[in-house]
Amino acid sequence: MRLKLLQVGLGPIGVAMAKKALARGHDIVGAVDVDPTLVGKDVASVLGGAASGKVCARVEDAPDADVALVTTVSDLERVVPSCVPLLRRGIAVVSTCEELIYPWKSLPAASRQLDEAARMGNTACLGAGINPGFVLDFLPVILTAPVEEVRSIKGFRVVDAGLRRGPLQKKVGAGLSVAEFEARVAGGGFGHRGFLESLHLLCAAFGLDVSGAETLIEPVISETEIKTEHAHVRPGFVAGVHQGARDKSGRIVLDLKMYVGAPDPKDSVVIEGTPSFRAVIEGGYHGDIATCAIALNAAEKIKSAIPGLRTMLDMPALNAPFARLG
Amino acid sequence: MRLKLLQVGLGPIGVAMAKKALARGHDIVGAVDVDPTLVGKDVASVLGGAASGKVCARVEDAPDADVALVTTVSDLERVVPSCVPLLRRGIAVVSTCEELIYPWKSLPAASRQLDEAARMGNTACLGAGINPGFVLDFLPVILTAPVEEVRSIKGFRVVDAGLRRGPLQKKVGAGLSVAEFEARVAGGGFGHRGFLESLHLLCAAFGLDVSGAETLIEPVISETEIKTEHAHVRPGFVAGVHQGARDKSGRIVLDLKMYVGAPDPKDSVVIEGTPSFRAVIEGGYHGDIATCAIALNAAEKIKSAIPGLRTMLDMPALNAPFARLG
Repeated sequence: MRLKLLQVGLGPIGVAMAKKALARGHDIVGAVDVDPTLVGKDVASVLGGAASGKVCARVEDAPDADVALVTTVSDLERVVPSCVPLLRRGIAVVSTCEELIYPWKSLPAASRQLDEAARMGNTACLGAGINPGFVLDFLPVILTAPVEEVRSIKGFRVVDAGLRRGPLQKKVGAGLSVAEFEARVAGGGFGHRGFLESLHLLCAAFGLDVSGAETLIEPVISETEIKTEHAHVRPGFVAGVHQGARDKSGRIVLDLKMYVGAPDPKDSVVIEGTPSFRAVIEGGYHGDIATCAIALNAAEKIKSAIPGLRTMLDMPALNAPFARLG
Repeated sequence: MRLKLLQVGLGPIGVAMAKKALARGHDIVGAVDVDPTLVGKDVASVLGGAASGKVCARVEDAPDADVALVTTVSDLERVVPSCVPLLRRGIAVVSTCEELIYPWKSLPAASRQLDEAARMGNTACLGAGINPGFVLDFLPVILTAPVEEVRSIKGFRVVDAGLRRGPLQKKVGAGLSVAEFEARVAGGGFGHRGFLESLHLLCAAFGLDVSGAETLIEPVISETEIKTEHAHVRPGFVAGVHQGARDKSGRIVLDLKMYVGAPDPKDSVVIEGTPSFRAVIEGGYHGDIATCAIALNAAEKIKSAIPGLRTMLDMPALNAPFARLG
């Protein structure tokens, strides 16, 4: 089904997502961004392709659409004012905002606002992404669908940052000294976001207590010298980041290692229960491709979701489009 | 949430499922079976535990319940008359009937009957199982949620029948001569059921044409002598079955090998697309445990499904219960 989409946020992810949406045959009917150098420009000049309309500074001025793709910031409280007017108008929202993956526990007031606006507009609002959003939360839940009883779930994601784009290598701290790494952690905002959201989604699915959850962030230190196009890591320096979270009982453990030179990158889920088993995604989902893809795949399904603030737990099954024959 | 369950069908799977439901703390409030040696007996005497009521011959005589677990036969047209009266009364139905996994294409009239009865009762009806129902259909769909575009999906299931119960070893033909195997295939009703249903679910998810689908059934012939507790396979004789299905374009391929002595049993999904990858469930889901488990896990979620005939594609996410601490 061809959708009329509104692109809210014209950063790198937003532009990439809107271009992919155009390539799938959807229409971009408008775009919103606060950047004064973009406001008033033809959306087509920013995105290329068959996009229409001018870039607006405010969502209130955006045209009607089926779904808004919201790719602005990670801080949900700053995303809510963009989403509420759209939802009230009946425009569904799919957002890559990490905190929207499972916001009910961390941000109940913002969650209620979004839920009420969506119900008022008889439409749905969803946070979608690969991590958080799929590989360390939704996928582990779904893998237990044919399981009699679970005793513990451990999700592992190993990413070779050396195979990814430069900004990701910077983001994980590749090339920093340990002291520099620790200063950045102490400064706040460093590292991958979304572990608590993943843990909250898992705890919600399994009816577990989320209080007392713990998170971890530490450097992965290189023993050897590694040079990539974007980073130079000396022995004893930082190759990347090791992050994780666990619930108080230690029965849900999430673990991410993202560093240059990581051997055998993969996503895996270890379930102890009846039965116990390990599931492996060989090579692991590619973060950038996967985040755009899952958000677009969600946008194509969200009109059939129950109105309100939704999570992956109560969405219909998402899937990729099949390539056309020939 | 503690459910009032009705067990419809007191064969081995039904009895096992009802016992698991009791162990989870649900109530079995009644049971239905056509077997005259069971009708009129106390349900508790058949199931043990805290079950109540007498075994009825007809669903019309069964007491009210939240959900009916229907484990009678594989032939949907014979299951419909049991389900319709229950659905009209507002009792949700979860059934292990293979043809109910995705019945809309093969049996549209029966599907409409179930859908209308469920809507009339403001409740839902679902077919649930591991294969069909999860490993070769729903799981492959879900694994594409973070994928940009799919070119082909191949699902493989390898089961070492020697590790499973005697009836399964018989069912796959372990120990037969090739001529005996072929006579059974020609006689009909032999082999594992549900490949077309799996293919139909996949085609529905991806919007592909289901016409011209092909199925395969052939023996796996043993090169060595194998003795299990239940079967004796001589060299050149049948160790088990190789079955499969594919859509006309060959872009969806499902493949099951279930035989005694199968090395490296596992479930795997190979996706070609953007990106391409393989997902592996090491050891593979255990059929008997998994079918009971997914049906019970579905029963615990079905009251929050949209009323009507549902499939796994439009159900909320299913999950196993977590073991209690301590």
